[in-house]
Amino acid sequence: MLEKIESLMHDYVNEVDSYATILYTKIPPGKRLRAKLILKIAGETESSEKLAAIVELIHAASLLHDDVIDEAITRRGIPSINATYDSKTAVMLGDILYSKAFFELNTFPTFIAQTISDAVTKLSAGELLDVEYSKEIQFDEEKYFDMIYKKTAVLIEATASSAAALAGKDEEAFALYGKNLGLAFQIIDDVLDITSDEQTLGKPALADFKEGKTTLPYIYMYQSVNKENQKKLVSLYQKELDVDDKVWIKTKMQESGAIMKAIGLATKLGEEALKAIEDDKNEALEKVITDMIEREF
Amino acid sequence: MLEKIESLMHDYVNEVDSYATILYTKIPPGKRLRAKLILKIAGETESSEKLAAIVELIHAASLLHDDVIDEAITRRGIPSINATYDSKTAVMLGDILYSKAFFELNTFPTFIAQTISDAVTKLSAGELLDVEYSKEIQFDEEKYFDMIYKKTAVLIEATASSAAALAGKDEEAFALYGKNLGLAFQIIDDVLDITSDEQTLGKPALADFKEGKTTLPYIYMYQSVNKENQKKLVSLYQKELDVDDKVWIKTKMQESGAIMKAIGLATKLGEEALKAIEDDKNEALEKVITDMIEREF
Repeated sequence: MLEKIESLMHDYVNEVDSYATILYTKIPPGKRLRAKLILKIAGETESSEKLAAIVELIHAASLLHDDVIDEAITRRGIPSINATYDSKTAVMLGDILYSKAFFELNTFPTFIAQTISDAVTKLSAGELLDVEYSKEIQFDEEKYFDMIYKKTAVLIEATASSAAALAGKDEEAFALYGKNLGLAFQIIDDVLDITSDEQTLGKPALADFKEGKTTLPYIYMYQSVNKENQKKLVSLYQKELDVDDKVWIKTKMQESGAIMKAIGLATKLGEEALKAIEDDKNEALEKVITDMIEREF
Repeated sequence: MLEKIESLMHDYVNEVDSYATILYTKIPPGKRLRAKLILKIAGETESSEKLAAIVELIHAASLLHDDVIDEAITRRGIPSINATYDSKTAVMLGDILYSKAFFELNTFPTFIAQTISDAVTKLSAGELLDVEYSKEIQFDEEKYFDMIYKKTAVLIEATASSAAALAGKDEEAFALYGKNLGLAFQIIDDVLDITSDEQTLGKPALADFKEGKTTLPYIYMYQSVNKENQKKLVSLYQKELDVDDKVWIKTKMQESGAIMKAIGLATKLGEEALKAIEDDKNEALEKVITDMIEREF
């Protein structure tokens, strides 16, 4: 099912530039969650496949720029483009993928073109927020949800809503499905950063806190431990963690119930996602949710 | 005339994010050549002003990413965003300006949205070419023209053609006008890098060759000097130039006729630009060409 999407994406990049294509083939494809979502909502038609390729190009572009911003050296288990080449190359390749995606988006109805491009605007603003919020420690749930909405959920929301529009289904219901799916997806991502290991994740584990990101499990843990442990947690912020620190964080995360609480919220958001599309629900769309919550990377 | 455009641009950015707006106001506006061109071709209407703001946002975004790629520390006489803040901030702000521009572009007829977004795709590919071609010395006119077409002329071409479409004028004729204007503009830019000084330019002079860019005057000079001087020129490629080197380059550029030949070509391209729109020519559009060729920065 995804082969067609991969080949469309490749062709789109190749239409722009042959050197860009060489670089592009060095990006591991990832889960293609957004493409799967479109095909499961709108079926496999020429338009839905094209939209899936466009959205995945946008997602790939955002990750390229994200890795530059986070100075990430790995992505999906292999060196990132900015690490293999340099930041410049990652910036330029991202620009090529973004602009080609926007060019191809012009062939879609205005609602879809606007929904997707509006999402990219919010996604870019989310990148800026991420850097702003990573400057100093803050255990602020509202800021966290605002940020994960913009950085992750907004494009999934727009994807689901656009796919619904393509298929003549209820755009608003699917927007809500996508939004909740996206929020849950990011919460699980943030949990896995703590509970999983580097090999499974394909990127360093316990990296978020070191990078200045106070994700939901950290917020929940801070809320439920005593003053002394709060102080210790704050002292580890943005620090290179040694083995003892890592064990301490992982243990306290479980003991305090922070991990369970975060997974609980993700599960609840997954249920709300399915509730939103009650009338259009099918096994495939339910499986997207369960797979996402139960995933290991 | 441009006040309205400045205020529209500001509003667009502010609709995305307030912190982005603060950053945005630190970018000096520049000549707004593309905005002027649209207003002179299509008149001052709501649509043309909106298109002018969109195209200038795209241009600003491309300069932000360009400065990251070139590691430029100044832009228009003041520190660049990547120098004042960091590369990350410049990448993100560029993404915000690009995506907002694409979002607003959706309200225009498909021809315009496609023409502009296709130009951005080529512009991004041009950035990649620029880096590729700057890796080793080459005195290749064909590569030079291909690169300045993509990096500079393509957006001006798309701008002129879109403005013509808005006004019901001949899109192809104006595309040719814009293309030739853009090529001439870049050639003059490359001449000024050699003949002008830092204060006038608002950025370091004689910077291109050091950055690995073999621009048209260098190609012409190489073609017309003897073997010994060719060898000396090659030896200075990508080097930090001392005063003697700088004097030598400037002198040989004049003596060899390279500067005159480059200005001659720019002038010829300017004439061809005007010839392309013979039926629609007016004083304002002629002035764009003469101002551009006779400019000092």
